[in-house]
Amino acid sequence: QLLSLLCIAESSNVLVMVGDDAGFETQVYNNSVCKTPELNKLAKRSVVFRNAFTSVSSCSPSRSAILTGLPQHQNGMYGLHHDVHHFMSFDGVRSLPLLLRQADVRTGIIGKKHVGPEWVYPFDFAETEENNSILQVGRNITLMKQLARKFLQNNTGQSFFLYIGFHDPHRCGHTHPELGSFCEKFGNGEGVIPDWKPVTYKPSDVVVPYFIQDTPAARQDIANQYTTISRLDQGVGLMLEELRLSGHLNDTLVIYTSDNGIPFPNGRTNLYDPGIAEPLLVSSPFDQKRWGEITDEMVSLVDILPTVLDWFGLKYPEYKLLKNPVHLTGKSLLPILESKQKQNWDKVYASHNLHEVTMYYPMRVLRTPQYKLIHNLNSKMPFSIDQDFYISPTFQDLLNRTRKGEKTHWFKTLSKYYYREPWELYDILSDPKELHNLAEKKEFEDVLKKLKLNLLNWQNVTSDPWICAPGGVLENVGAYKMNPQCMSMDNNVF
Amino acid sequence: QLLSLLCIAESSNVLVMVGDDAGFETQVYNNSVCKTPELNKLAKRSVVFRNAFTSVSSCSPSRSAILTGLPQHQNGMYGLHHDVHHFMSFDGVRSLPLLLRQADVRTGIIGKKHVGPEWVYPFDFAETEENNSILQVGRNITLMKQLARKFLQNNTGQSFFLYIGFHDPHRCGHTHPELGSFCEKFGNGEGVIPDWKPVTYKPSDVVVPYFIQDTPAARQDIANQYTTISRLDQGVGLMLEELRLSGHLNDTLVIYTSDNGIPFPNGRTNLYDPGIAEPLLVSSPFDQKRWGEITDEMVSLVDILPTVLDWFGLKYPEYKLLKNPVHLTGKSLLPILESKQKQNWDKVYASHNLHEVTMYYPMRVLRTPQYKLIHNLNSKMPFSIDQDFYISPTFQDLLNRTRKGEKTHWFKTLSKYYYREPWELYDILSDPKELHNLAEKKEFEDVLKKLKLNLLNWQNVTSDPWICAPGGVLENVGAYKMNPQCMSMDNNVF
Ligand SMILES: [Ca+2]
Ligand SMILES: [Ca+2]
Ligand SMILES: [Mg+2]
Ligand SMILES: [Mg+2]
Repeated sequence: QLLSLLCIAESSNVLVMVGDDAGFETQVYNNSVCKTPELNKLAKRSVVFRNAFTSVSSCSPSRSAILTGLPQHQNGMYGLHHDVHHFMSFDGVRSLPLLLRQADVRTGIIGKKHVGPEWVYPFDFAETEENNSILQVGRNITLMKQLARKFLQNNTGQSFFLYIGFHDPHRCGHTHPELGSFCEKFGNGEGVIPDWKPVTYKPSDVVVPYFIQDTPAARQDIANQYTTISRLDQGVGLMLEELRLSGHLNDTLVIYTSDNGIPFPNGRTNLYDPGIAEPLLVSSPFDQKRWGEITDEMVSLVDILPTVLDWFGLKYPEYKLLKNPVHLTGKSLLPILESKQKQNWDKVYASHNLHEVTMYYPMRVLRTPQYKLIHNLNSKMPFSIDQDFYISPTFQDLLNRTRKGEKTHWFKTLSKYYYREPWELYDILSDPKELHNLAEKKEFEDVLKKLKLNLLNWQNVTSDPWICAPGGVLENVGAYKMNPQCMSMDNNVF
Repeated sequence: QLLSLLCIAESSNVLVMVGDDAGFETQVYNNSVCKTPELNKLAKRSVVFRNAFTSVSSCSPSRSAILTGLPQHQNGMYGLHHDVHHFMSFDGVRSLPLLLRQADVRTGIIGKKHVGPEWVYPFDFAETEENNSILQVGRNITLMKQLARKFLQNNTGQSFFLYIGFHDPHRCGHTHPELGSFCEKFGNGEGVIPDWKPVTYKPSDVVVPYFIQDTPAARQDIANQYTTISRLDQGVGLMLEELRLSGHLNDTLVIYTSDNGIPFPNGRTNLYDPGIAEPLLVSSPFDQKRWGEITDEMVSLVDILPTVLDWFGLKYPEYKLLKNPVHLTGKSLLPILESKQKQNWDKVYASHNLHEVTMYYPMRVLRTPQYKLIHNLNSKMPFSIDQDFYISPTFQDLLNRTRKGEKTHWFKTLSKYYYREPWELYDILSDPKELHNLAEKKEFEDVLKKLKLNLLNWQNVTSDPWICAPGGVLENVGAYKMNPQCMSMDNNVF
C-alpha cells in the first residue's frame, strides 16, 4: 500500500478509450456471440459498471460532456460540431485537457475528437480528424498503435492523460457505402491494417436486441457491426500493450466507455435506455480488490472528469460561465473502485437538444433505478432521423416494410417512434422496454411530481437555457436578475 | 461628370448606418407624427426604397446577412450571437470587412456588432459592445460622434468603409426597466448625451399600425419608441455632419437601413411584412438625378454587399464554403440610383431558423410584388416569444387581455399567432395584412406550385441545410454526392 501511494505521487496517468456508438455487444456484457477477448482481459482488471449512462446520445455533445463534466446545455455543444451543424462549447469552459495542462499533466488525443473550439479543448499531442483522415486515425488500429507509442515514448517523466477516440464501431455506409454498413470492409483482406484479424459472423448467429427488428436485413447489419467491433476490441488490446511496453500499465488509470447508444432504432439520438446506457470499465492498478467485479451503481459519463481530477489530486476550479456559477453535478468514481459502500449513486440525468442542426428535439431526462422520466420539448413535431442512420440497412428495412404494409417485426411502429408525448414516465423495473407511459396515470401523480421537481432542480443547477421551454419564457435579467422566473406564454404546450 | 469619375477613382467611401429594430416611424415613410428631420434631409439626397426587405428578422442573423451577402442558413449565423445562443458564421465566409481589408479599404465599426467570430468580421477600427457598454457605444450619440470623428481623422487617403450600428430604437425594458421600455430615459434630462434633444409624444397622438392593438398600453409603448427614434434620427444627423466636416460628404456612398422589423407583435422574429419590410435610403453623391425619388424595386438587405463591392469596383471571389460553391443571390443597387429601368427586381427571399437558441422556428419565405409564401418548418409547435418582447408593455397587454377574456383590439388572436399552418400563401395586393391563407385553395394551386419551386431553387442555390426539412432527410454524401436527394421519413409533416 505504501508503494502504491509512492507510485501515485511520482507518476500516475490516465488512459481513456472511447468507442464510437459502441454498446453492449461484448462478452463483458454477456453477449455470447460477439467475441471481444481484449475487452474481456481489460474487464478482469476493472470494475465493470452495468448502470452507466451517457448524458446525451449524440457524438459531439457526449464527448463535450465527457471532457467538461458539464451537460451539453451547460457547455454549449448543443449538437454536432462539424460542418453546417457548427456547435461549439463556450469559450470560458474549463475542460479536462485545459485543467490538466494547467496542472502540468501532458495530454494527448488520438482518433476522433469532434469537439471545439480548439482553445477550449487544447491537447499537447493531437492526431485527430482535424489533421488526418478519420478512417485512418480512428479505424486503422495499427496506425493508432504507432501514434500511441509516439506519444508514450516522448514522455519525460510527466504524468499523462491519453484519450483514444476509436471511430469504430460507427456506421460508414452513409459516407463510404463501398466499405459496408459499418466499414467492416475497411482494411479487411487487403492487409491495410496489419494488426487487425477480422472476425466475421453469420447473420443467423447474431443476438438481436429487443429494440431492433428481427429480420434478415437487420441481422446482416448487426453481423457487420460485430465485425467492426472486432477491430475496436483488438485496438483496445493494442493500446493496453503499448501501455505495458511503456512501463505504465501499473501506474495508469484505464477507462473504457462509449459516447452514445448503438446506431439502431431507439438507440443513438434517443434518450431511451438503448440510447443512453453505456459500457463502462474502470481499471485502477492501485485498487485491485474489486477487479472483475460488476457494480450496479448508477453513474454518468459526466463522472469521468471528476474521476480523473480526483486521480491526479486536482480540484475543479470555482468560476462562472456566462455569469452563472459552475458546479459539477458528477462525482469521482474512485471510491467505487475501493469498496462497495453505496454513496447515493441512485440517479442520472440526460439532456439532448439537437444532433444535426436540422434535428431540433430537446429532451430532458431523469433515470433512477426504478423510473425514467423524459420531457420532450418539441413533442408535437416528429422525432427526427439523421442522415447516417436513415441510409442504414436496418432503418431502410423498417421504412420499406412500413410502406409496403408488411410485418416489421419491430417492437414499435414508426408512427409511435416519431410522435412522442411531451412527458414520458416509465417503470423500468416492470417495463424495461419503455413502452407504457405512466405520465398521465393518476396513481403515478406523486412519483411524477417528485421526479419533475428533481429534473427541474438539476436544470436550474446546470443553468439550462431550456428550463422554461416550451411553455414559458425565462426572464433572468433586469428586474428578474436576482429572481429568475419562468413566465407562461399561454401557448398550450407543457 | 468627368470630375465625379475622377473622384471615384481617387477616393470613395461608404458609410452604412443600421438602426436596431427600426421601422417606418419616420416622416420619410409618411409617418406624420414621429419627427425625423435628419432622416428627411438624408432622404432628400437619397433614393428612397419602399420595397426593401431584410432576409431575416433577427438581429445577429440579419447583420450577418448584411455583412456577408449570404442568408443566415448559408453563412452559419442561425440565431443570436451572444450569450448562450452562441451562433457564429462559418470560418470560411468572406465577409465585407474581410474583402475590403484585402482590397486595402480601411474599415471601421461603431456601435452594435453582434456577429462573430472575430476573424470572419475583422474591422480595422472597432468600438462595439465587445469593448464598450452597448448603451454608451450604441445610444450615446455624442460618444458615437466622437468615435466617428476619431475614425475619420485617422484616415490617410485610403478609401474607407464605416459601419454605424445604432442600438436605438431597440427595446431595453428587459435589461434596464428603469430606463423605460425603449431606453427613452437614457441620457434624457441629465445631460449625459449633450447632442440629444429628446422629443416626447402624447400616447393619444401616435400612429398605431394595423399589427399593434390600439390600447393605452400599446400607445404609451409606441410613444416611448418615438422618443428613442428622435435619438436615432439626431445620431444620423451627427454622422452626416462628421462626414461633411471630414470633407467626405461628396465622395461617400451613404446607406441607411435597419436590421429587422419593429419589436411589436407580427414584427421582429416574424417573416410577415411587419417583420421583414425595412426602411432603406441609398445616397450617392455621384448620382444625384434620382435624389429624393421613391422607388418600388423589390430589394433585399443581401444586396448591400454587392452594392458596396460594386462601389469600390471589386469582384466577389469564387470560393467554396463547406464544399459548396458560394454564389451571391443579391445584386448591386447602384443601377437603380442611375435610372428607373427595371431589372427584374421582382422577388426577395427570407430565411429564419432561431433567434434565442430555445426559439427554434425555421421559416423560408418568398415575397413577390403580389404574393407572400411562407414555409413554417416547425409549425406544429407554437411560435415562440423572446425574452425582450415578452416583458414589453405591448405584449403584456395582449397577454393580460387574452387571459382576462377582454377585448384585445388586436387584428389576430394569440392562438392564431402561435399556431401557424406549415404553408402560408397570401395575396398581398388584396390582403396586405396577411390574414387569409390561400395555400389550401384549389384556385391557387398553380401559383403555389410555382412559388414553391422558386423557393426550393433558392434553397438549393444557397446550400440550405434545411432544404429537406421537416419531412425529409437530405442525403448528399457517399452514394448521393453527385446527386443529392431529399428522402422522405414518412412522418406526415410537410
Ligand atoms: Ca458517436
Ligand atoms: Ca435588431
Ligand atoms: Mg464563443
Ligand atoms: Mg467554425
